[in-house]
Amino acid sequence: MTPAKIQFKRPTLLLDRRKCLDNIRMMAEKAARHNVIFRPHFKTHQSADIADWFREFGTDRITVSSVRMAEYFAIHGWNDITIAFPVNLAELKEISVLASTITLNLLVESTDVVKKLTHTLQHPVGIFVKIDAGYHRTGIDVSHHFQILDLISFIDSKKNLQFKGLIAHNGHTYHQNSSLAILDIHNQSLAMLRKLKTFLAKNGINPILSIGDTPALSLTENLDGVDEIRPGNFVFYDLMQHKMGVCTFNQIAVVMACPVVALHPERLEVVFYGGAVHLSKEYVNSKNNKMSFGEVVLLNENGWSEPIPDTYVCSLSQEHGIIRTEPEYFHYFIPGTFIGVVPVHSCLVASMVPHIVTLEGKQLMTMSCDFKP
Amino acid sequence: MTPAKIQFKRPTLLLDRRKCLDNIRMMAEKAARHNVIFRPHFKTHQSADIADWFREFGTDRITVSSVRMAEYFAIHGWNDITIAFPVNLAELKEISVLASTITLNLLVESTDVVKKLTHTLQHPVGIFVKIDAGYHRTGIDVSHHFQILDLISFIDSKKNLQFKGLIAHNGHTYHQNSSLAILDIHNQSLAMLRKLKTFLAKNGINPILSIGDTPALSLTENLDGVDEIRPGNFVFYDLMQHKMGVCTFNQIAVVMACPVVALHPERLEVVFYGGAVHLSKEYVNSKNNKMSFGEVVLLNENGWSEPIPDTYVCSLSQEHGIIRTEPEYFHYFIPGTFIGVVPVHSCLVASMVPHIVTLEGKQLMTMSCDFKP
Repeated sequence: MTPAKIQFKRPTLLLDRRKCLDNIRMMAEKAARHNVIFRPHFKTHQSADIADWFREFGTDRITVSSVRMAEYFAIHGWNDITIAFPVNLAELKEISVLASTITLNLLVESTDVVKKLTHTLQHPVGIFVKIDAGYHRTGIDVSHHFQILDLISFIDSKKNLQFKGLIAHNGHTYHQNSSLAILDIHNQSLAMLRKLKTFLAKNGINPILSIGDTPALSLTENLDGVDEIRPGNFVFYDLMQHKMGVCTFNQIAVVMACPVVALHPERLEVVFYGGAVHLSKEYVNSKNNKMSFGEVVLLNENGWSEPIPDTYVCSLSQEHGIIRTEPEYFHYFIPGTFIGVVPVHSCLVASMVPHIVTLEGKQLMTMSCDFKP
Repeated sequence: MTPAKIQFKRPTLLLDRRKCLDNIRMMAEKAARHNVIFRPHFKTHQSADIADWFREFGTDRITVSSVRMAEYFAIHGWNDITIAFPVNLAELKEISVLASTITLNLLVESTDVVKKLTHTLQHPVGIFVKIDAGYHRTGIDVSHHFQILDLISFIDSKKNLQFKGLIAHNGHTYHQNSSLAILDIHNQSLAMLRKLKTFLAKNGINPILSIGDTPALSLTENLDGVDEIRPGNFVFYDLMQHKMGVCTFNQIAVVMACPVVALHPERLEVVFYGGAVHLSKEYVNSKNNKMSFGEVVLLNENGWSEPIPDTYVCSLSQEHGIIRTEPEYFHYFIPGTFIGVVPVHSCLVASMVPHIVTLEGKQLMTMSCDFKP
């Protein structure tokens, strides 16, 4: 049994629109409740159709992770976009064109990049200073108050650059095992960011503070000092978020429908069509502490079931996936039928597949399908 | 300095055509020397242009890993194709259409699939029986002689199904740490496969034996009993193959050119534009036993350098990569310029990027760019 109206042939990313809308509503309402700007990160879905669903909740400002993605959403009518990625100087020309047509915000963390931007840009752009509040991927250390103040002053002195605020992303929440650990990171980072804001205020600068990360923003009600939130993954959620206690299983809005192609009852394994090119090599730990590349569900008329117990994707090669299960569930798997794999990391999965298909059978527009360079 | 004539903007998969041609020649000559059929696996490059380069070496039979890929190469003039993947019954219609236009070979391992094939197909297809010679991913155990004999007899009795031979793939060679371990697997597996051939010969069946896997086929000169080889990865090679002792560094024919976007000298880290969506999450162990998602080279007019010592990609998120290096090499990294990342697994990388670009600046046709469903 598979969702109505869908003619599956190959691995297909299935989206439960109702769950997705609930996720969007939940986060939009949280932003409204705390009176912060909701600027969702669209790198997770990269779909002009799903983007439109956000409009119903009043969203008119978005975040993306590349110039190319900004171009895609600009074409689809989004005119206030933050590219939450260090400026790629090789794309200054494209950035300049974008800045002439939409409200564009960029991230910087060095004077060198500021100089090159002001030298090239013919139209104003908003500038966020990237702050490292503990993740240590990019940004200026949150405790380096004077360095940050100097950079802001430098930006303010430059033509076409309008300093807008501070931007932080606590990506290390993704590496935690519990919701408590995530909230600890969030609260500590927020305390340091507020301290920075206080310091800047004493120097006459009152920037907005924009923070990211789905794990913390799903769990917390502490947005003290925050002016804008940029979560992305929550639109779909995934197994990784579920394992961390960030979402319930029922909030996960996507599964990969995969054809069963061979059975190996002697080792309780099922071979399916669906590999690293569909599901990525991200993994979580299974119950027995093995690498799990996804949990497994049965597809039905209304979507999909709870996970089949003690059953997981134990191995992925380029196009093959292997499920390990238990004797009592083996009869679920029949070559020629489809099973669902709950992805470990939905952002990677969605960026790799050409299509996303709703349970109603609608094929959604995506950047990878409609906008390949 | 970057290869001549190329205007980089974003992460770009660069191909050294000369190295690639040398790799193709090396394997084609090995096949000729041993008088075996050369049926290269095209899932690694998925490019109609690179496919054409094989024609210069007399290649006219190929292997692919999906029906879709068979359709792509059939359109580009390849008319003898083996789909080295268990039959996906959801694509029987597409398989039937293909079988009407080209010589198509399929893999089976069960009577159920044979029944469904013969019931549907209107045109003859060649059938290989998938043998598991130790990898334990798919196939019938090589020691189950009578089960294999029964399946072959069953196939032979069916309309439109022409039994062609035995097919094996020792994918577990990819998990070895040394060339000796790879050759051990190869030799043991080949001994078992020859035993199976001898058994079948006594029963009046003389199938061809087709084997896969780049690691063993790169290293061995023992093809005793083998009739056909289907290596794929050798066309590009990659860091994983190099670490296993399968190829030299100079045989690796691809690197991902990536823009440097931020510097963090305080932790000897370089941020570049290039993430899991470009490089996949495959890793090898670095010198200091950390996860390495790639080694790093300097791009130059003729291609790229040897790897920068003690320097590796220590982390990848969706679009960001982080390089860890040493003080004496830090000056190599300048925002706005490009560095090269040697991919861990070239098959995954090539399947994720829209383009492959040669050092001469030619953008090659690929399935993901020209043939998305």
